[in-house]
Amino acid sequence: MDLRETIAGIAPADAEAMRAAEARQASLTKPPGSLGRLEELSVRLAGMQGTARPVIRGKTIIVAAGDHGVVAQGVTAYPQEVTAQMALNFLSGGAAISVLARQAEIELVIVDAGMATALPEHSALRVLGIGRGTADMTVGPAMTRGQAEACVSAGVEFALEAAERGADVIGTGDMGIGNTTASSAIVAALTGRPPDETTGRGTGRSDTELAAKAAVVERALAVNRPDAGDPLDVLSKVGGFEIGVLAGVVLGGAYARRAVIIDGFISGAAALIAHRLCPRVCEYLIAGHLSTEAGHRIVLEALGLRPLLELDMRLGEGTGAALAMGVLEAAAAALSDMATFMEAGVSDRPAVEKGGMD
Amino acid sequence: MDLRETIAGIAPADAEAMRAAEARQASLTKPPGSLGRLEELSVRLAGMQGTARPVIRGKTIIVAAGDHGVVAQGVTAYPQEVTAQMALNFLSGGAAISVLARQAEIELVIVDAGMATALPEHSALRVLGIGRGTADMTVGPAMTRGQAEACVSAGVEFALEAAERGADVIGTGDMGIGNTTASSAIVAALTGRPPDETTGRGTGRSDTELAAKAAVVERALAVNRPDAGDPLDVLSKVGGFEIGVLAGVVLGGAYARRAVIIDGFISGAAALIAHRLCPRVCEYLIAGHLSTEAGHRIVLEALGLRPLLELDMRLGEGTGAALAMGVLEAAAAALSDMATFMEAGVSDRPAVEKGGMD
Repeated sequence: MDLRETIAGIAPADAEAMRAAEARQASLTKPPGSLGRLEELSVRLAGMQGTARPVIRGKTIIVAAGDHGVVAQGVTAYPQEVTAQMALNFLSGGAAISVLARQAEIELVIVDAGMATALPEHSALRVLGIGRGTADMTVGPAMTRGQAEACVSAGVEFALEAAERGADVIGTGDMGIGNTTASSAIVAALTGRPPDETTGRGTGRSDTELAAKAAVVERALAVNRPDAGDPLDVLSKVGGFEIGVLAGVVLGGAYARRAVIIDGFISGAAALIAHRLCPRVCEYLIAGHLSTEAGHRIVLEALGLRPLLELDMRLGEGTGAALAMGVLEAAAAALSDMATFMEAGVSDRPAVEKGGMD
Repeated sequence: MDLRETIAGIAPADAEAMRAAEARQASLTKPPGSLGRLEELSVRLAGMQGTARPVIRGKTIIVAAGDHGVVAQGVTAYPQEVTAQMALNFLSGGAAISVLARQAEIELVIVDAGMATALPEHSALRVLGIGRGTADMTVGPAMTRGQAEACVSAGVEFALEAAERGADVIGTGDMGIGNTTASSAIVAALTGRPPDETTGRGTGRSDTELAAKAAVVERALAVNRPDAGDPLDVLSKVGGFEIGVLAGVVLGGAYARRAVIIDGFISGAAALIAHRLCPRVCEYLIAGHLSTEAGHRIVLEALGLRPLLELDMRLGEGTGAALAMGVLEAAAAALSDMATFMEAGVSDRPAVEKGGMD
């Protein structure tokens, strides 16, 4: 599907269904509001699915992996080959996301969005074939505009395919040595915040290395001058293939009216690109967790999202999204499956005092 | 089992297993520390279970229900009959905890710890038969010391039975119109904090009603003068039957070396009684979530526990514990089932820099 067509086809959440869900929440056997954010989440889900009794059956996480030319600038602790090694680990079931997905019965789709090393074929692996790693963004654009459009479009298709296979919720995940650096550049470009605020330790680097990393981001922005008003320009200048794919997953998920749970900082940078292409995607977005990566808070503020979980995680791979799926399932089940006061024969408070149940 | 025997039999967490779990965490295919609180939780679980590769298979939540004479003081919004109506709702599957337990495959045990109204027999219902609701604590002790010991002992047995049926984790839940008032009194008595700090809105009562509720707690403490150094005295003077049962569940769970996930404020007050009977129970306790009920934060501070989830919930019933069980399962699975760098053939960082993976 053409990207413009996808964007134009993203419908607003169903306000009528949300009102009906709110009314249903008020009739359920519990003090109103006592399930807190589960209630809020269930009403949002009702709006996405267009029904007062939403369901979560199928769950898919799309983990996009890509390599980054900027690793030539020494911004990472792990060698580049780790991207493909970890993608293989995802497929063979030994990575954190493999374990969490298995445990929660989440379908895992791994996308080789452009890794330096190719992997053998696998039923859960999708290969983009638009490049083997981006170019070093400190000396020029990370990719062409055509590549940027291609990876976003591919992400849209992956989301639509997942929805067609029965996913009621789609999670995002990432793998890519160097991709916190690219994400910091994207977030700085799109929000106007300085690189030293959008750049984090990635994974525990020293103060000196952190400052050097922020300087690399600064240089990439100075060399490329990405246009903040043109998200695809930002993606092509300082992005990554996997980040483009995830931006597409967000757009495709919203188009298919599926809840999209975003993971951490890299997924957040991708969601920010999608949001700038189509602000309405936020009606379908759920922030799975707050990463300890410094720039993540900035991303969530820009998206107007409050994270569900805060577990001091910073792994990526979709691990935060996987955990949050359990909360979303609970929210949907409570709204859709609980008995009303009437059905259960439970006395409600007297009408004069609709306070609560001690 | 005799209560003193149970308390004496609670063993410390296995330090050797925790060291082995930490070493294993460091060898898994992720930057060290990147799973945040999941890692910390998995190491604690290793200590409880005495193995570096802990597992969570069986899950049980014990929901204790009881009535409170103090409702005569007008401290609640809902009528007393709601306690038994809701317990019936738990059993017939329409309550929030029923739905969440079903969704997450958690066994539910409902305890009639002393409700004003008896329920028909049910395979998931345990009946204590030590009283039909406590006495009004503003005019005298809520129960006798014998009743206090009996409900705690019963709770121990319920936990041991759950462990025997295969529960690797036991959650606590409560139902009882009036039980936030009793819990406020318990927490004030055991921590020395004033009733206006330990008393919350229960479920959204007005400022005037809140002040009146705190005054009721104050009066109950003045009339009964519970001995802060004697947790069973506190329970008998200002407690509730269901709170005593849950204190016993905590003790029994720790005795059986099972992880015990406590729910909100009422479960917290029960855990505080257990903790004062045997401080070591904290090694087996996990705070499922932070309730919006005002006194819950005080309880968790006193127990030295940091809640896993903050979802603005205040329902009780074990709903917060149910949601947290998913996080605990994920923590156990990540530690026990992930591949090591060696197994997966993933390059670790150079030894000189053990920082992280970007």
